[in-house]
Amino acid sequence: SRSIDLAVIPGDGIGQEVVAEGLKVLSAALPQDVKLETREYDFGARRYHATGETLTDADLDSLKRHDAILLGAIGDPGVPSGVLERGFLLKLRFAFDHHVNLRPSKLLPGVATPLAGQPEIDFVVVREGTEGPYTGNGGTIRKGTQHEVATEVSVNTAFGVERVVRDAFARAQARPRRKLALIHKNNVLTFAGHLWTDVFNRVAEEFPEVTTEYMHVDAATIYLVTQPERFDVIVTDNLFGDIITDLAAAVSGGIGVAASGNINPDRVFPSMFEPVHGSAPDIAGQGKADPTATVLSVALLLRHLGHDTEADRIEDAVSADLAERAGRPARSTSEIGDALAVRVAG
Amino acid sequence: SRSIDLAVIPGDGIGQEVVAEGLKVLSAALPQDVKLETREYDFGARRYHATGETLTDADLDSLKRHDAILLGAIGDPGVPSGVLERGFLLKLRFAFDHHVNLRPSKLLPGVATPLAGQPEIDFVVVREGTEGPYTGNGGTIRKGTQHEVATEVSVNTAFGVERVVRDAFARAQARPRRKLALIHKNNVLTFAGHLWTDVFNRVAEEFPEVTTEYMHVDAATIYLVTQPERFDVIVTDNLFGDIITDLAAAVSGGIGVAASGNINPDRVFPSMFEPVHGSAPDIAGQGKADPTATVLSVALLLRHLGHDTEADRIEDAVSADLAERAGRPARSTSEIGDALAVRVAG
Ligand SMILES: CC(C)[C@H](C(=O)O)[C@@H](O)C(=O)O
Ligand SMILES: CC(C)[C@H](C(=O)O)[C@@H](O)C(=O)O
Repeated sequence: SRSIDLAVIPGDGIGQEVVAEGLKVLSAALPQDVKLETREYDFGARRYHATGETLTDADLDSLKRHDAILLGAIGDPGVPSGVLERGFLLKLRFAFDHHVNLRPSKLLPGVATPLAGQPEIDFVVVREGTEGPYTGNGGTIRKGTQHEVATEVSVNTAFGVERVVRDAFARAQARPRRKLALIHKNNVLTFAGHLWTDVFNRVAEEFPEVTTEYMHVDAATIYLVTQPERFDVIVTDNLFGDIITDLAAAVSGGIGVAASGNINPDRVFPSMFEPVHGSAPDIAGQGKADPTATVLSVALLLRHLGHDTEADRIEDAVSADLAERAGRPARSTSEIGDALAVRVAG
Repeated sequence: SRSIDLAVIPGDGIGQEVVAEGLKVLSAALPQDVKLETREYDFGARRYHATGETLTDADLDSLKRHDAILLGAIGDPGVPSGVLERGFLLKLRFAFDHHVNLRPSKLLPGVATPLAGQPEIDFVVVREGTEGPYTGNGGTIRKGTQHEVATEVSVNTAFGVERVVRDAFARAQARPRRKLALIHKNNVLTFAGHLWTDVFNRVAEEFPEVTTEYMHVDAATIYLVTQPERFDVIVTDNLFGDIITDLAAAVSGGIGVAASGNINPDRVFPSMFEPVHGSAPDIAGQGKADPTATVLSVALLLRHLGHDTEADRIEDAVSADLAERAGRPARSTSEIGDALAVRVAG
């Protein structure tokens, strides 16, 4: 479409700084005739401290009208653990049915990895975003006593698993290597594990060109550090996806460059794009944050909205920028953003 | 005690081969006046294929009379996923209340790691072994239909969490660095997470000399590959422990050297010691398996039974053997066992 109406949630800490650069690069990438409208929202720790609110029904109504959402990062040490996660981040993922949580991992030339031997890493994780242990099901009895019992219920449905598995197969089919790995723990979590495995095997029949494998999540962490080149597309549950995508980010250049999309493929609701990193209060306000993960999230956003050429240009600019970093003095957040904006515009 | 009555479960695949070497080294390490009695049990895929049984009440009664259990590995591709895991391994952990699942990670000199820069790694994970998502709670409705729903319930009790947290604090207190990290996901799994965090903070007051930190499991996977030297003792839930100990094994020399103990600290039941690796049917029967993880599990077993001197001797022998491996031709399973037996005896 020839206009983009974007909700922008800078959030807290470095979220503010990196989102500014993301928008800078976005503006530079868009052709003249695409009109960009943005509206900023103050969600996060600031709003919570001021009003006690995290995300109201009115907020959701308002967000719903945008084409997409760009999020920086939310949270600060003054907010109790879980309040913004459950009250904002997860609430939004669930409310807008962001069932495809997309997290590409690509080790770009010139980028440092903690792994020896600079392996080839280029895979994408399709993490389920609306089920599993993230539903908030469960509870506590006898809280604070010696007899406390706390439960967490992982809820998995054929409907929910099938749609994300199907999305992952389609992505694998569209990539040159056409490989898809299901990661779960079906030998222990047998109820959920059988559902995932059955659905995966059933959908696989519709994609005969895709080579599949199954891997336990514990074994997957080994392969991610010893043979990361073996992965092409991975599909997995919400919690396993959370864990392995942080590991994947670590081995493929760090969370400074890890982008993600919380996608509603049906387009009933706007999708949300955000760097994998958090608000990093320790370095906030110092211009030290790397905006690259946010800029790559902007590329995912553009691709989602059908602006593939612009998404490609941003990804190419990031590759070129990273390739030239080694040995150079560190740049500030805005210097990196400026450099990327120049590259995508030129 | 001056005698050891050991249950030996070689299991399947390479389990048989590595257990033979473990026993060889155990015999060599024990002083003349300690009588070693062993009884072999045929649990695993062999027994399952022959009789359909995994672990009967009579088996448990029989196992219960031993001082400790040495397990190789069980499983083969002919057994459906979950049957032996739930029907044998987990059944035994639960029946014998193995609530401390102990997994040391130490990168020994000369041992290869996938990480660049050969970091210093020397930590131990205390994984809870009888609760969390491993209880088998949950179920399936409308199985096999488009409306299937499968649940997994993580069950966490103050009793269960406190005893393992206390064990971990005591281990941290006894180590030179006196550091303990709690790993969980308390910002999302808020019911279980609050229980773990509250108990951890309460017990911490009794151990003022132990420095503590909290880390989300996703962040922990990053630190395990970027700053593994930061860890001393880790305490965590059953599933997170499963995942991070495989990653820990991968970065600290691979599952060829990763040992573990399923410990009942109350000594009401015998504890079980086993390598972290599986039965590896692909290399079984070829004398290719590295028995080192089993030998190190034997050292944990001896330490548990109070034979610290012998445990030290085995660990020293393994260190010396590994230090000399680099650049040498590969040895067979029994050659490695022989070399270790000679070292511990001499
Ligand atoms: C902050 C938290 C709720 C979130 C998650 O667990 O999904 C984060 O770790 C992520 O991966 O986006
Ligand atoms: C085989 C399986 C049941 C087991 C577990 O998940 O605990 C294994 O992965 C382990 O870590 O000992």
